[in-house]
Amino acid sequence: MKIIFGNRKSVEEVEEGTELQPKFDSQGLIPAITVEYSSSEILMHGYMNEEALRLSIQTKKAHYWSRSRESIWKKGEVSGLYQTIKQIKIDDDQDCIILFVDLEGLQASCHVGYKSCFYRELDTHNSKFSDSLVFTEKEKVFDPKKIYGNISNPTKL
Amino acid sequence: MKIIFGNRKSVEEVEEGTELQPKFDSQGLIPAITVEYSSSEILMHGYMNEEALRLSIQTKKAHYWSRSRESIWKKGEVSGLYQTIKQIKIDDDQDCIILFVDLEGLQASCHVGYKSCFYRELDTHNSKFSDSLVFTEKEKVFDPKKIYGNISNPTKL
Repeated sequence: MKIIFGNRKSVEEVEEGTELQPKFDSQGLIPAITVEYSSSEILMHGYMNEEALRLSIQTKKAHYWSRSRESIWKKGEVSGLYQTIKQIKIDDDQDCIILFVDLEGLQASCHVGYKSCFYRELDTHNSKFSDSLVFTEKEKVFDPKKIYGNISNPTKL
Repeated sequence: MKIIFGNRKSVEEVEEGTELQPKFDSQGLIPAITVEYSSSEILMHGYMNEEALRLSIQTKKAHYWSRSRESIWKKGEVSGLYQTIKQIKIDDDQDCIILFVDLEGLQASCHVGYKSCFYRELDTHNSKFSDSLVFTEKEKVFDPKKIYGNISNPTKL
């Protein structure tokens, strides 16, 4: 099936219509939140360009745009940590996507070795938030050196 | 408590450390995903500048940066749809925030009148995704005209 991204002609249609009319930003990207379908846990937050969104829809395997490598990134191609898409949601103004996925392989998603990229939370003291972080995942699922070898780290300062 | 955003000095510290070192993009913003604490449902995807993040941490009420109005936006100030923050997570490279919140008032979050901004999903035919949308929320929680009056719609084409 050919996937068409409709032209954004009116706010009413974007918000209340049934045509996919995604908004890509000035760099051609749309943010995508990835959620584990079975648990509702948020796994990662990435970006897609038009091609990555089209490939995700057509193949049901999550594709992103890697801002660090400046290329299409089929999640799992290096690591085996493929994501199979079960459901795709879009928001009111159609400038954000949610992918609900099943995890393949090691059942993890984060290049640091954790299941989710969101493995830390702000600590609290006397019911107030502090600026210290505590780990919500106590152990890594895998050793990133074994999975990624010498591939450069995507995290940028 | 004074909230300090640490300097990003090393990838190791950003990824594996316990100091809050958020990364704001070239426009001074960091994306924030808002999740209902009790249900794990994703409600919205917005942006924060430094002040909005600091206010959110200090007051436990969600504050965002409104890109359409170009100003700090205390969620609920107009609508009464305040969000009380129960937990704050940050991702591996500290360039995305999750707010886990309790909803106040009408128990909704979206300016169109739905509980979540993600009230539509891609339709499927013969187990393939199409480019048509179907509504996952069948009814609006509130009438936006009654809540927002003549305030201009934040959705931009």
